[in-house]
Amino acid sequence: MNNTRRKFIASSVTLAAGAVASVAAPAAPAKGKTPLVHHVFFWLKNPGSVADRDRIIEGLKTLRKIEAIKELRIGVVASTEKRDVVDNSWGVSELMFFEDLAGQASYQDHPIHQKFIKDCSHLWDKVIVYDAMDV
Amino acid sequence: MNNTRRKFIASSVTLAAGAVASVAAPAAPAKGKTPLVHHVFFWLKNPGSVADRDRIIEGLKTLRKIEAIKELRIGVVASTEKRDVVDNSWGVSELMFFEDLAGQASYQDHPIHQKFIKDCSHLWDKVIVYDAMDV
Repeated sequence: MNNTRRKFIASSVTLAAGAVASVAAPAAPAKGKTPLVHHVFFWLKNPGSVADRDRIIEGLKTLRKIEAIKELRIGVVASTEKRDVVDNSWGVSELMFFEDLAGQASYQDHPIHQKFIKDCSHLWDKVIVYDAMDV
Repeated sequence: MNNTRRKFIASSVTLAAGAVASVAAPAAPAKGKTPLVHHVFFWLKNPGSVADRDRIIEGLKTLRKIEAIKELRIGVVASTEKRDVVDNSWGVSELMFFEDLAGQASYQDHPIHQKFIKDCSHLWDKVIVYDAMDV
């Protein structure tokens, strides 16, 4: 089954679930299939190094092979307006979606993830992780 | 056009764009339609108040009417494993996806967003915003 077809079916299932929920409890939101959001920000040891940044990005791309990660976005700082509340001091971000806590836990221990940490952790100075569950 | 059909078409377009990109530049990733990620974390003035948290959540739900926001997830702290790098001190999160910088800028000024800030900002103590662009 290709990705397009899979996404199409997933959307249909979500919509169907939402329709049922709206009958049972009108105020309840329809939850998606990947409610666990795992967002990680990396601050580079050499903040100005595009080479180091790109090595982390390449390392993050290897994580796509991990089955438990249902979607992965790799990001750099966007050039939105400067505001006091916006933290733009980081270098690279990874945003992942999991089906559940077990999926995220299995990702932490996955050999490909461990290899990424082994290969790239010398390039970063600080990491902050935010794990959110959709309401 | 309903959402399912729109998502299906959007996926097809993304796949097609990816196919073209892979001919022109093999290493280039296929970019999605909403590459701008806007993730906001709110720390509550009364961290233990479920009522305050829920008022912010209800306020965030009103943002769904803003056209520029292509996807919105509202989250609370997930019960993942405790680790030094995981920040679980916040109370509510909003994760939004925009098509571009202009979309995000228009959201900032949107009356519904301004009303949310007016109605709910007394409930939070601190806000951190991360704006990432997919690579």
